[in-house]
Amino acid sequence: ERDKYENNDVAGVVTGLAWTSVGGDILFIESILSKGKGALTITGNLGKVMKESATIAMEYIKSNAKSIGIDPNIFDNYNVHIHVPEGATPKDGPSAGITMLTSLVSLFTQRKVKKSLAMTGEITLRGKVLPVGGIKEKILAAKRARIKEIILCEENKRDIEEIKEEYLKGLTFHYVKEMSEVIDLAITDSKVKNAKKL
Amino acid sequence: ERDKYENNDVAGVVTGLAWTSVGGDILFIESILSKGKGALTITGNLGKVMKESATIAMEYIKSNAKSIGIDPNIFDNYNVHIHVPEGATPKDGPSAGITMLTSLVSLFTQRKVKKSLAMTGEITLRGKVLPVGGIKEKILAAKRARIKEIILCEENKRDIEEIKEEYLKGLTFHYVKEMSEVIDLAITDSKVKNAKKL
Amino acid sequence: ERDKYENNDVAGVVTGLAWTSVGGDILFIESILSKGKGALTITGNLGKVMKESATIAMEYIKSNAKSIGIDPNIFDNYNVHIHVPEGATPKDGPSAGITMLTSLVSLFTQRKVKKSLAMTGEITLRGKVLPVGGIKEKILAAKRARIKEIILCEENKRDIEEIKEEYLKGLTFHYVKEMSEVIDLAITDSKVKNAKKL
Amino acid sequence: ERDKYENNDVAGVVTGLAWTSVGGDILFIESILSKGKGALTITGNLGKVMKESATIAMEYIKSNAKSIGIDPNIFDNYNVHIHVPEGATPKDGPSAGITMLTSLVSLFTQRKVKKSLAMTGEITLRGKVLPVGGIKEKILAAKRARIKEIILCEENKRDIEEIKEEYLKGLTFHYVKEMSEVIDLAITDSKVKNAKKL
Amino acid sequence: ERDKYENNDVAGVVTGLAWTSVGGDILFIESILSKGKGALTITGNLGKVMKESATIAMEYIKSNAKSIGIDPNIFDNYNVHIHVPEGATPKDGPSAGITMLTSLVSLFTQRKVKKSLAMTGEITLRGKVLPVGGIKEKILAAKRARIKEIILCEENKRDIEEIKEEYLKGLTFHYVKEMSEVIDLAITDSKVKNAKKL
Amino acid sequence: ERDKYENNDVAGVVTGLAWTSVGGDILFIESILSKGKGALTITGNLGKVMKESATIAMEYIKSNAKSIGIDPNIFDNYNVHIHVPEGATPKDGPSAGITMLTSLVSLFTQRKVKKSLAMTGEITLRGKVLPVGGIKEKILAAKRARIKEIILCEENKRDIEEIKEEYLKGLTFHYVKEMSEVIDLAITDSKVKNAKKL
Ligand SMILES: [Ca+2]
Ligand SMILES: [Ca+2]
Ligand SMILES: [Ca+2]
Ligand SMILES: [Ca+2]
Ligand SMILES: [Ca+2]
Ligand SMILES: [Ca+2]
Ligand SMILES: [Ca+2]
Ligand SMILES: [Ca+2]
Ligand SMILES: [Ca+2]
Ligand SMILES: [Ca+2]
Ligand SMILES: [Ca+2]
Ligand SMILES: [Ca+2]
Repeated sequence: ERDKYENNDVAGVVTGLAWTSVGGDILFIESILSKGKGALTITGNLGKVMKESATIAMEYIKSNAKSIGIDPNIFDNYNVHIHVPEGATPKDGPSAGITMLTSLVSLFTQRKVKKSLAMTGEITLRGKVLPVGGIKEKILAAKRARIKEIILCEENKRDIEEIKEEYLKGLTFHYVKEMSEVIDLAITDSKVKNAKKL
Repeated sequence: ERDKYENNDVAGVVTGLAWTSVGGDILFIESILSKGKGALTITGNLGKVMKESATIAMEYIKSNAKSIGIDPNIFDNYNVHIHVPEGATPKDGPSAGITMLTSLVSLFTQRKVKKSLAMTGEITLRGKVLPVGGIKEKILAAKRARIKEIILCEENKRDIEEIKEEYLKGLTFHYVKEMSEVIDLAITDSKVKNAKKL
Repeated sequence: ERDKYENNDVAGVVTGLAWTSVGGDILFIESILSKGKGALTITGNLGKVMKESATIAMEYIKSNAKSIGIDPNIFDNYNVHIHVPEGATPKDGPSAGITMLTSLVSLFTQRKVKKSLAMTGEITLRGKVLPVGGIKEKILAAKRARIKEIILCEENKRDIEEIKEEYLKGLTFHYVKEMSEVIDLAITDSKVKNAKKL
Repeated sequence: ERDKYENNDVAGVVTGLAWTSVGGDILFIESILSKGKGALTITGNLGKVMKESATIAMEYIKSNAKSIGIDPNIFDNYNVHIHVPEGATPKDGPSAGITMLTSLVSLFTQRKVKKSLAMTGEITLRGKVLPVGGIKEKILAAKRARIKEIILCEENKRDIEEIKEEYLKGLTFHYVKEMSEVIDLAITDSKVKNAKKL
Repeated sequence: ERDKYENNDVAGVVTGLAWTSVGGDILFIESILSKGKGALTITGNLGKVMKESATIAMEYIKSNAKSIGIDPNIFDNYNVHIHVPEGATPKDGPSAGITMLTSLVSLFTQRKVKKSLAMTGEITLRGKVLPVGGIKEKILAAKRARIKEIILCEENKRDIEEIKEEYLKGLTFHYVKEMSEVIDLAITDSKVKNAKKL
Repeated sequence: ERDKYENNDVAGVVTGLAWTSVGGDILFIESILSKGKGALTITGNLGKVMKESATIAMEYIKSNAKSIGIDPNIFDNYNVHIHVPEGATPKDGPSAGITMLTSLVSLFTQRKVKKSLAMTGEITLRGKVLPVGGIKEKILAAKRARIKEIILCEENKRDIEEIKEEYLKGLTFHYVKEMSEVIDLAITDSKVKNAKKL
């Protein structure tokens, strides 16, 4: 049985789109903070490239902290743990990049992620979003999971245009070029419930 | 010969349910503290995913220490060792997650785990419990081992409903969605004998 | 040619029982201290599970130092090295656990191990002794090596009962459930010659 | 679809030329700084030799900081992250050396890289540029990507001379022997927009 | 062409006996000190067991420094490097143990090793010397290399007794049980030329 | 196309002789210093044995700093990076030992290496030079590369004597037994241009 979209109550939880050997699925990126000295832990039975995505997201945020609205002094005082359930499934590839980025921005700002939103796209250190594969399968999975809005790379627009319109009904697409657009679209102004004071 | 439920005398010892190539079995998660600087050691011939479960449990507790009732300052003053007997058997998978979580909460609170209780379920960083496989085999093993109560993920209820009722006689099931429910159900108010003062 | 029991003159040297592809044998667990910061070094061409036994023994002692009669402050001031001769033979499995435990307790208390004693059994973090395999072969090897007393897990009693009585003549068996019983049986009140002052 | 040359707006982004199993392509080397203690992180699904190129570039700059015009005291105060999109493609080999060198010099000087420029060449610790393979395929890819100028090792001149002239129209070649020539050619006097003050 | 015995001029250089796929040979164990914090470096294309021998020798000396006549405070102020030429030949096994022990004692005492001496034997943490294989081939190699005296484990005496007497002419054998006997036999009272003051 | 001898302008650059599957070749060993805490970095697609040569050279110099004329206090204040171009070619074996030694001595003394000189030979911790293979192929490569003088191990003299005299015309050979002889022959009294003050 497939996963369903859940809610946006918890800081650091973001819905991504995955393309596996058995079709499309949604996945969740989770991240938490604990007092520490800046260590980054990554779990979820991930391959090398997906772990690199988490590192890229973290380093991008550190390097651009001010423009994102995060106090750069907090990175040294917390450990960050990023996890991708479900542990029994091996996962790899760069397509969870923008989902990880959004997760960490939500975590460090303690702000809610937009409701009913999912996303897929590779990230770069210079702030660009790159296109990814498996778009059709991912979109069908998003609908099944009751997603309403989807963030994709501008260059994935052509993949959407090849999908029959009836499959797209009820879905709103946001095409982006820059990682800053992802943050603008995905991170709301509302603090999460019981927001931590960092 | 199969293991039997033992007792709840020692902090950090919790009964889990395992599904192996030769059927279901119970297993024990053990954890201990020693003076140190916060190192986490994991033994028991475990695979990568099962080790990740221990890391997730530890980091979840660190990040949610206050709401669980643990002084967050103690983590830096102790090393934690989690072990899963029996060393000759390789073990892997995410299903011991809630058992590891319960073990660590019992350890850090020095409180007894509920008597005659076993459990199986994957954990996430955001506090949700995920369903796991092999439920039928695990339940049969639990009965053989004289377990009385079992904690499962809500989504594993359907697996229980497919088991003949006579096999379930004498067992009470607790279905949970959140890791906080596991802690509420499994951790008693009684301190263990010779409780350490942390 | 097989090894023979030697003596109990040196702190940290304990006789174990091994079951290899060519039958049973005795083996020696050796441990020494040197000034340091608490590092644990393990040698002897050991596999992962046997190394884990050394870690479990060390952490159990650290966590239960007071009840064993060891000053918990000394662990940070010494490095411990555990070695299992003979380097040309790969060794693995959990059955040397109680032997390693006894070796380390002898080392940290600088007390003699009981004379003509051998042992085999898995250890756990919660202080229980678990049964191990190859009992018949190990017992025959113990006799050949002039061992007089043997410590086994209570659950290995049935394995002894299946051995012809003539093979057991001259051997005394101690069946234990707890690691504290092993320490009581194996560690004498006499300090070793030239005992170090820790 | 192939990548296109983008712009020179961001510090540390430089266009390289790659030769893959499916022909030539351009690639981007990206680097960023964050407050730290001098750690170097390298991502992008890179093999051992390509990671070594990043280390060589970094150490060369550290050793020759003054002559390049970089304050040698800043290296201890920042972490550097070098990334090569796209994560799904494994990459290896020494030919991105001068591109990585240029990326890091742009990063540490916060100066713009020359517009419409691409490059390929191995670097050495003593400051020489070495020739690389796949020149014809790389040049065709550069044209497709709207590159105007290309830096190559002097010893690759012969490879250019074997290419039909019509393929070279619109391209200017700079042949170099020394890494200092690459820096002179590629790094402009203009600071990047929003240049960081290091 | 085979190696020849050289001399005993340099601290830390000791002649061992090796048994390889192409017969017996002598080998040299070399060790040097440099100012440092106690690091141990091991080179020479060695396998895991031979590296363990170096660790065992080092830790034994640290633990028994006083009785060997070494100031235990010097270990923290020097790095030790043990090397076994020749790098092109992979080497493994425990038989160089007493040779490594002798090398390190010569190094830390800056005393000469006895002239024209070679040795082979496994070491243990409790100070015993264990027998090793390939004795006949090693003895023939020792003669060819102009060795005059050989240290062996007592239990290897039987191997010598099976060798034709004519092959043993000119060789003196020292059979030992304890590592302290090796040190007594091998380490002379003379300081090496240009002895370092530690 | 094969490499040519270049010059002796840069500290730490020394010409070695390599024997590969496609015949003999020259190779360059390069080393540089940067402010640091004594780290040693080794690159160039090297195998384990060749990396060990770099470690041996470095430790030998540290241990014999005074007699070589290097202030032993500088090692803690600099990081050293040794690189062997060309990254696309895997390299291994001990024969670059004396070349690496010479490179590091030139680096730490900032003195020029003798002009038109190449070398090949294994090094040991006790200061001896050992013979290496592929001499004939290496000599032919040296001539092609316009080398004039070659340092070899004394024991490689016999290999030279088997080469036709016409191939040796224009080459001067220096046969050495000790690493100190290599340094005497290879390191000149002239400081390199722009010598660093260490
Ligand atoms: Ca799923
Ligand atoms: Ca995704
Ligand atoms: Ca069991
Ligand atoms: Ca379980
Ligand atoms: Ca034996
Ligand atoms: Ca045993
Ligand atoms: Ca591309
Ligand atoms: Ca390139
Ligand atoms: Ca030899
Ligand atoms: Ca030897
Ligand atoms: Ca070449
Ligand atoms: Ca060479």
